[in-house]
Amino acid sequence: MQEEHAGALLIVGGSEERHGDMQVLSKFVELCGGPDSAIVVLTAATSVPDKIWAIYDAAFAELGVSNRAAIHIGNRREADDADAVAQILRADGIFISGGEQQRLLASIGGSKVHETMHRAFRERGACIGGTSAGASAISRHMMAYGTKDMLPNKNSAQLDVGLGFLQHVVIDQHFSERHRLARLLSAVAQDPDVIGLGIDEDTAVVIRDRGWLEVVGTGAVTILDGRRMTSNFDEANPHQQLELIDVRLHLLPAGSHYNIGRTADAPAALRNVLALVTEI
Amino acid sequence: MQEEHAGALLIVGGSEERHGDMQVLSKFVELCGGPDSAIVVLTAATSVPDKIWAIYDAAFAELGVSNRAAIHIGNRREADDADAVAQILRADGIFISGGEQQRLLASIGGSKVHETMHRAFRERGACIGGTSAGASAISRHMMAYGTKDMLPNKNSAQLDVGLGFLQHVVIDQHFSERHRLARLLSAVAQDPDVIGLGIDEDTAVVIRDRGWLEVVGTGAVTILDGRRMTSNFDEANPHQQLELIDVRLHLLPAGSHYNIGRTADAPAALRNVLALVTEI
Repeated sequence: MQEEHAGALLIVGGSEERHGDMQVLSKFVELCGGPDSAIVVLTAATSVPDKIWAIYDAAFAELGVSNRAAIHIGNRREADDADAVAQILRADGIFISGGEQQRLLASIGGSKVHETMHRAFRERGACIGGTSAGASAISRHMMAYGTKDMLPNKNSAQLDVGLGFLQHVVIDQHFSERHRLARLLSAVAQDPDVIGLGIDEDTAVVIRDRGWLEVVGTGAVTILDGRRMTSNFDEANPHQQLELIDVRLHLLPAGSHYNIGRTADAPAALRNVLALVTEI
Repeated sequence: MQEEHAGALLIVGGSEERHGDMQVLSKFVELCGGPDSAIVVLTAATSVPDKIWAIYDAAFAELGVSNRAAIHIGNRREADDADAVAQILRADGIFISGGEQQRLLASIGGSKVHETMHRAFRERGACIGGTSAGASAISRHMMAYGTKDMLPNKNSAQLDVGLGFLQHVVIDQHFSERHRLARLLSAVAQDPDVIGLGIDEDTAVVIRDRGWLEVVGTGAVTILDGRRMTSNFDEANPHQQLELIDVRLHLLPAGSHYNIGRTADAPAALRNVLALVTEI
């Protein structure tokens, strides 16, 4: 049965601690099966893969993980490489580093590595982690680019297609630290059926099993549900400020955890959202 | 009948333009009755009243208002001064400057000047304007103090009693510029029956007649409705991060205007909020 049970997702808002306390990376190791598990770090999002790998190499070593390796992919040919595919199929956990989400998708989107990550996740129950750009890329809807606008306008967020481990969310990272509410509101206004998840630094959303969500680390996750929203998005000019009415906001700090499959402990407005967010 | 019709409120998020375009101050002059109206500026919130008056003296002069004067009140004795009372009773508009809202309330709260402002507003239809600290003080619920916390905790906002021109709102100013969502969420969590109004700089919320709301200037107003919210406020420790579920957020940029008394053009979730917000 293990082979038919999807793994866990650990979606990190960037800047997670890489030594010392490491609540977020510890959780990743735990979800992979502990220090004896095989962990690979995918550096395809970054232009400085060796530097990034050195950081995670040291962090996972500190966490007692000896079976750890990097997969460096710089182009689409490397994304179909048989060795990379074999490494992913053997891994208990795949951690996607930060960098730029568009660089990541440009190299691995639709490749054998991408396909194999899905097999590892769905058939073998491997844990998929992603931080910063690697977090943005986790869902099918990906914020490819966002502005620093203080208020949302029609062009504050540009969506594209991500890796597809989640179906109904759009993720933003470094959320409270970089004041990204405006761009996530703009993304949700653009596609109101998609739930916005804004994840803070050193904070992870863990999803395992449908209906199971936990927040780990030191910040919070902001959930924006625009499904009942009224907005002027369709008629607005490109840089016109958006009017948004009836966005449902949920703020879950680290320590929040819900399992809507097992209990009915979540308020209805959240239960309803979590059913969508956790559809893996 | 004019004598029994309440005036308009113009609630400014601070840093409104004081020369040139002056959308916000122009609107104030218009609501007072135009350049021929009598306007007084109440400087009781600031420790530098002469400096603040010089700024508004020049601004209102540029707007063609010749009948303009300052009312400087530095203590409670001055707040019962007969000349100040007479000035307020003759004014078409009373503009409350920025500074510190606690200083303002400490000197005029419950005084003859305060009482006379209510008479001028309710019986004579005078316009009441307030910017920054003067905006925070407009409502009965006043954010006396707020922290710069990135995420809301139990102590991010401290409420006190304001001037009472509005009944069901708590106002914050410099809202988007100073990233004050967290402290306004904390205020709403503390008193979920009170609607949070976060007003940006150079932006005003105009309320005239029940159900009539307009946003003027260059920013937006963020409305937080926590009446259906579930939170951990009551059981949280003093500095514990708050979990907030089902806050309804409405973002109205400058140019938005609603008159729920006349038409049913507002979406239900907003109409419902505006009925409370505009109860004057």
